[in-house]
Amino acid sequence: MPTQNHALFYEDIQIGKQYGCGSVTLSLEEIKTFARQYDPQPFHLDEEAAGKSVFGSLVASGWQTAALTMRLRVEGELQLQGGWIGLGVDKIVWPNPVRPGDTLTAFTEVVEARESQSKPQYGVIKVRTTTFNQREEQVCEVVSNQFVLRRPAGQPDTSLKTTIAEEV
Amino acid sequence: MPTQNHALFYEDIQIGKQYGCGSVTLSLEEIKTFARQYDPQPFHLDEEAAGKSVFGSLVASGWQTAALTMRLRVEGELQLQGGWIGLGVDKIVWPNPVRPGDTLTAFTEVVEARESQSKPQYGVIKVRTTTFNQREEQVCEVVSNQFVLRRPAGQPDTSLKTTIAEEV
Repeated sequence: MPTQNHALFYEDIQIGKQYGCGSVTLSLEEIKTFARQYDPQPFHLDEEAAGKSVFGSLVASGWQTAALTMRLRVEGELQLQGGWIGLGVDKIVWPNPVRPGDTLTAFTEVVEARESQSKPQYGVIKVRTTTFNQREEQVCEVVSNQFVLRRPAGQPDTSLKTTIAEEV
Repeated sequence: MPTQNHALFYEDIQIGKQYGCGSVTLSLEEIKTFARQYDPQPFHLDEEAAGKSVFGSLVASGWQTAALTMRLRVEGELQLQGGWIGLGVDKIVWPNPVRPGDTLTAFTEVVEARESQSKPQYGVIKVRTTTFNQREEQVCEVVSNQFVLRRPAGQPDTSLKTTIAEEV
């Protein structure tokens, strides 16, 4: 995998730093299209049935909310060398449902970092991404573990060089 | 929510019982369509870039594998009264990637059950769904917590009645 500009190596990761994301708006038709393929339940597909459900009106599948959270991550400020390669997820919660027309944004925080036991060229970071709607209600929290490439020996720390150049 | 035939109330749940699912085959185009919308990374979108990645060839987003696991659940043998309404996820792992043309199936096991503290008409069950490809390699494991409606007081246990009718 070629290295990427602006993407962080494991050594660049700062625990506790928060990274922003863009935003995405979800339409009724996108909700139904996803539900037909991945979560075909009446409260994701049919307005009338959804009105009689526990949700009171049509809502997006939680898996679509989680998938949109992934997109916000991939396109967000925290860019990782090697890409967003997941080992697994420790937690997902959906405190509020997403409804047609909602606009979502998110922020990501790195909560832990360790060297990989099995793959010496990688580090493993635990990241928490929290997703909100346009009313600042939390709609999703994902905590996952991701591989991040370690800086190859002898490769210059260009991010630091840039900072020094700006200081001089 | 009207009650459904063949769907289990909380009281019908058997801890440890395994429930099967159907199967679903994932095409290259479906992998790319999902990735464009939810996980736009080169190893999900571009065969040449994927060949140079850690995966060695194009793979599906893990979030698509998880979403397909949801579909297998929703259409599988374990039907829940009120539908599959998730409180949250305790764990997702992806031991092997999914590649174009792979056919997935899964089974679900109920591992815990408790009455809801906040919603007396519901129980909460913890379920583990394990998803495999056509080579019987595990591609996903999801452990989640789901609401299930409790049997309303005075409603006959028709599942048991059917069993008795068959016995006589």
